Amino acid sequence: MTERYAVRQSGSGGQGMILAGVILAEAVGIYDGKNVAQTQSYGPEARGGASRSDVVISDGEIDYPKAEEIDLLMTLTQESFDNYHKSLKPDGILIYDSDYVKPNVKNPPFKMYGYPIIRVAREYVGKEIVANIVALGIIAEKTGIVSKESLEKAVLARVPKGTEVLNRRALETGYLLAQGKKLLD
Amino acid sequence: MTERYAVRQSGSGGQGMILAGVILAEAVGIYDGKNVAQTQSYGPEARGGASRSDVVISDGEIDYPKAEEIDLLMTLTQESFDNYHKSLKPDGILIYDSDYVKPNVKNPPFKMYGYPIIRVAREYVGKEIVANIVALGIIAEKTGIVSKESLEKAVLARVPKGTEVLNRRALETGYLLAQGKKLLD
Repeated sequence: MTERYAVRQSGSGGQGMILAGVILAEAVGIYDGKNVAQTQSYGPEARGGASRSDVVISDGEIDYPKAEEIDLLMTLTQESFDNYHKSLKPDGILIYDSDYVKPNVKNPPFKMYGYPIIRVAREYVGKEIVANIVALGIIAEKTGIVSKESLEKAVLARVPKGTEVLNRRALETGYLLAQGKKLLD
Repeated sequence: MTERYAVRQSGSGGQGMILAGVILAEAVGIYDGKNVAQTQSYGPEARGGASRSDVVISDGEIDYPKAEEIDLLMTLTQESFDNYHKSLKPDGILIYDSDYVKPNVKNPPFKMYGYPIIRVAREYVGKEIVANIVALGIIAEKTGIVSKESLEKAVLARVPKGTEVLNRRALETGYLLAQGKKLLD
């Protein structure tokens, strides 16, 4: 039986969900050396500004990278929560921005964790634009699907030169948030 | 019958094949408004530095984004040509860097076009790093799968601030190369 783990990161365009997908896939595929596929799909609705990327990790061949059954869903917007929460497996994990998303589902079968991801990026890390990297830190801490060493390497290989310290801080902040540390008043 | 067109862009890590895939997918999906999926896969062999990304355009639902039957293959390295030319459809198109790739196939069933893409990026456009954007211009000119207006929008939305003129020049240069213009001595 092949083990398979699918992560969907979703938000609005400009929130860096595609870069986050590429980074997670490179951390797992290049640095941890596992089989991984990373996909994003667009249709006419993409003009509305929604953005998502999927990463599927497998210990066997990945012949079907589409992530229909999501193990972990990260949502930074209400629209992306509304669109995708039904794709979560019953034993899956939802991680959401608690300032922007109300997970209005009765008796959800999945686990839910809310954090003020974007506000923490802006006020604690120092730049809202690294919210996607904070989110990656949360995913890594909550799931263990990627080693911290590999994730940091992949982040630093992809972010613009001169932003390495900011992004390393964003990643560490994601770990702290997921560990339950209170970072803002 | 659903029309489907699959493009694989391949080279070594650092040549920007993944960014090129994201840009092509966004041009077709967001700006041209078609259904498109963009995928990259990594396995343990990715440590060797090979890099590829696939874009599948469809006029229907895309339920299978893996590009097993490639309509257009762009290769910037011999290794990527060797790995992927067998995935090309018989009526497909191969585009390759003529300085780095020898397409050593007897009686190839596909069409072949070689250009000194990397050298043109370095010596005519001014920076080797935009070879991936030159390549996108060639793909657009040879296939017509993406409108030039949409491709330019997508390029400018994804490249680093301050490099817009360089990248616009790279794209125009790709069109000229594909039209058969001689740009270097």
